[in-house]
Amino acid sequence: MRRILRHQTREKGTKGPPAMIVTAESVWACVGRIRAAAPLVHNITNYVVMNTTANALLALGASPVMSHAEEEVRDMAALAGALVINLGTISRPWVRSAFLAAGAAREKGIPVVFDPVGAGATAYRTNTFRDLIREFPPAIIRGNASEILALATAASRTKGVDSTESSDRALDAARLLNGETGAAVCVSGETDYVIQGPRLIRVRNGHPMMPRVTGLGCTASALCGPSPPWSPTPRGRPRRPWPSWAWPGKRPPGKPRARGRSSTGSSTPSTESAKRISANF
Amino acid sequence: MRRILRHQTREKGTKGPPAMIVTAESVWACVGRIRAAAPLVHNITNYVVMNTTANALLALGASPVMSHAEEEVRDMAALAGALVINLGTISRPWVRSAFLAAGAAREKGIPVVFDPVGAGATAYRTNTFRDLIREFPPAIIRGNASEILALATAASRTKGVDSTESSDRALDAARLLNGETGAAVCVSGETDYVIQGPRLIRVRNGHPMMPRVTGLGCTASALCGPSPPWSPTPRGRPRRPWPSWAWPGKRPPGKPRARGRSSTGSSTPSTESAKRISANF
Amino acid sequence: MRRILRHQTREKGTKGPPAMIVTAESVWACVGRIRAAAPLVHNITNYVVMNTTANALLALGASPVMSHAEEEVRDMAALAGALVINLGTISRPWVRSAFLAAGAAREKGIPVVFDPVGAGATAYRTNTFRDLIREFPPAIIRGNASEILALATAASRTKGVDSTESSDRALDAARLLNGETGAAVCVSGETDYVIQGPRLIRVRNGHPMMPRVTGLGCTASALCGPSPPWSPTPRGRPRRPWPSWAWPGKRPPGKPRARGRSSTGSSTPSTESAKRISANF
Repeated sequence: MRRILRHQTREKGTKGPPAMIVTAESVWACVGRIRAAAPLVHNITNYVVMNTTANALLALGASPVMSHAEEEVRDMAALAGALVINLGTISRPWVRSAFLAAGAAREKGIPVVFDPVGAGATAYRTNTFRDLIREFPPAIIRGNASEILALATAASRTKGVDSTESSDRALDAARLLNGETGAAVCVSGETDYVIQGPRLIRVRNGHPMMPRVTGLGCTASALCGPSPPWSPTPRGRPRRPWPSWAWPGKRPPGKPRARGRSSTGSSTPSTESAKRISANF
Repeated sequence: MRRILRHQTREKGTKGPPAMIVTAESVWACVGRIRAAAPLVHNITNYVVMNTTANALLALGASPVMSHAEEEVRDMAALAGALVINLGTISRPWVRSAFLAAGAAREKGIPVVFDPVGAGATAYRTNTFRDLIREFPPAIIRGNASEILALATAASRTKGVDSTESSDRALDAARLLNGETGAAVCVSGETDYVIQGPRLIRVRNGHPMMPRVTGLGCTASALCGPSPPWSPTPRGRPRRPWPSWAWPGKRPPGKPRARGRSSTGSSTPSTESAKRISANF
Repeated sequence: MRRILRHQTREKGTKGPPAMIVTAESVWACVGRIRAAAPLVHNITNYVVMNTTANALLALGASPVMSHAEEEVRDMAALAGALVINLGTISRPWVRSAFLAAGAAREKGIPVVFDPVGAGATAYRTNTFRDLIREFPPAIIRGNASEILALATAASRTKGVDSTESSDRALDAARLLNGETGAAVCVSGETDYVIQGPRLIRVRNGHPMMPRVTGLGCTASALCGPSPPWSPTPRGRPRRPWPSWAWPGKRPPGKPRARGRSSTGSSTPSTESAKRISANF
């Protein structure tokens, strides 16, 4: 069986979480757990990807529902195993619903995945996203480099976001964002980075054609929802991620880590320690 | 030519409508009539399936339009040969438009197909759907077992809907709903059931993979719209259905049968009389 | 290399713009320029085609964004190389946003493509579209014959639109619309016509199956956005179109030609002068 390796990068000699080994077997076992649990995943997502992400969640074995009416999002979120918020086609009614649903998810201990589509493009978008993650810190944030930079620079009170920044800068922004919100932060691109406290994972699964297909990032975010050990019951807690696209928070959402904690995650990624993780679907 | 059988199940010795024989030829003739008429089908449908159902209706030969603005739904419904209402991504403006369009359809005698997506999941959804079918009884209702149960228990004033109920229970609920509203009720699943008065049809065309693809139920509902002998003119009346997915009402919409009429539909389905109907598209 | 011919039809002996020769090489060079510039294309488009047109724009090399919130459309349009407005699933909030975005585009000199989906079907739709193109004349209008007729008869203050009108009538309507708004007008069908002042182009690329697939017209409109020499900067001006689907205005949007100018475009299309333009993608 082909091995799929995931290495946690860690400074030599520093203390940190144990390394994780990921194999095709362990990934398949995760898929099996999702299929057995068939968790309801409540999506407040954008129009462009609704069909795509619904099918992706179904293919994985989850049960997606797209629901955004103010009148029902609290009820729907309370039924779900996870809530995915993606305001890619942002509008005022959807923003209201996202806040309502995120509040219900916090009350019930339901993990929230947030995708900051287009953060940095307009002030309305960026400010809304910042307000949302500050008021309701999600379990996972997944975005591309410029989106993570746009979110993080709010946290650090700096201004100006440039999507041409180097990925090193996106990593620092991701650490900052993780420290501020407690969310596991995934910066996706040709190489995906996942940051959670002192942990950093690289997933080198990107392909140059991926940015030429709409909604692949949104799909990755949606698939972060049904992480297998998350119970589909209202009391579900994220414990372990489905490893090939994100590393979710191990603590319940809504309890951000203390400020500055991210400074302990001082490990810098060393190229030689990052192994290619391949998953063939 | 391969025969496609449709048997109406009926208790031996009881009076009831004559059995129908469906062949591939008769199905193809129906498709031919749809293509010749090219009826405009007005869809007030959900975001997830808009593209899918538009293409399905086009493939069948109908002319779909997706329209939900309060300012135009009455005009659009009045132009159409059928109105399909699917509030799968329910919100207040769409609910208003669904009521307006259903009212216009009733005035003009245009048949309405209603898909109660997610009935039973939240109170807002269930109550809205119940109000809609009570005020504007559709010609056809198509849903899965738990959705039909959720709708029907409102009609019978009972509470509690459990999607794990057996299909026998869903059949009783469908009969109740048919009696209350006069709508032909289709309970879809691995086997589809269509109930209209004393008639019951089973269509055993389901495949275990179908629930893993989003929007197939919504597509079935959309395709109930352009039933071939329905005239595309405002005065069109449903007369005979396209038989492979539903059995629409034979009476104009908006005239529900008298309460209790469904009790005459006492035929219970006998397994031996139900034949597999296969259609290869 | 296979030649792709585009002939401008012109009355013998009249003065007019020089003929254009289009080859596969020149088309490919245009694609190369789009890919190099990767212009942001701001779409206010309908739900049915959002995914399709996003992927089409990505395939061409542009960077699509779907954005319609009142709070951000002015900012988004100002960032874009082109704005595509398609109110196929019209509603009041989207109409407000279309006017706001079109206003921002005019201020910044950004070309606007307008697709009058369903013009003529309802009064709300037709009147809204007429108001929009009158207040903010776009660089390009692309619609089918009945949509162009519905728009143009407003311009000429006549009433009654019949989709069964001959294509000659649609051509006259397109000329009228071009004269009123200054927009290059594309009437698409089995043969596409593009009218701009005295120029008329026929593109005979249609296929009888094309009307049976949803969103192909909307996709053609979206692809008019990233015409290659349009700069992705706010000061971008349309200069030359990507020739295989439309011939955009050569003047900045918002400056309609003087009334009556179209009367100088008196060339009538002669069948023999129209050559088939083929593009294989």
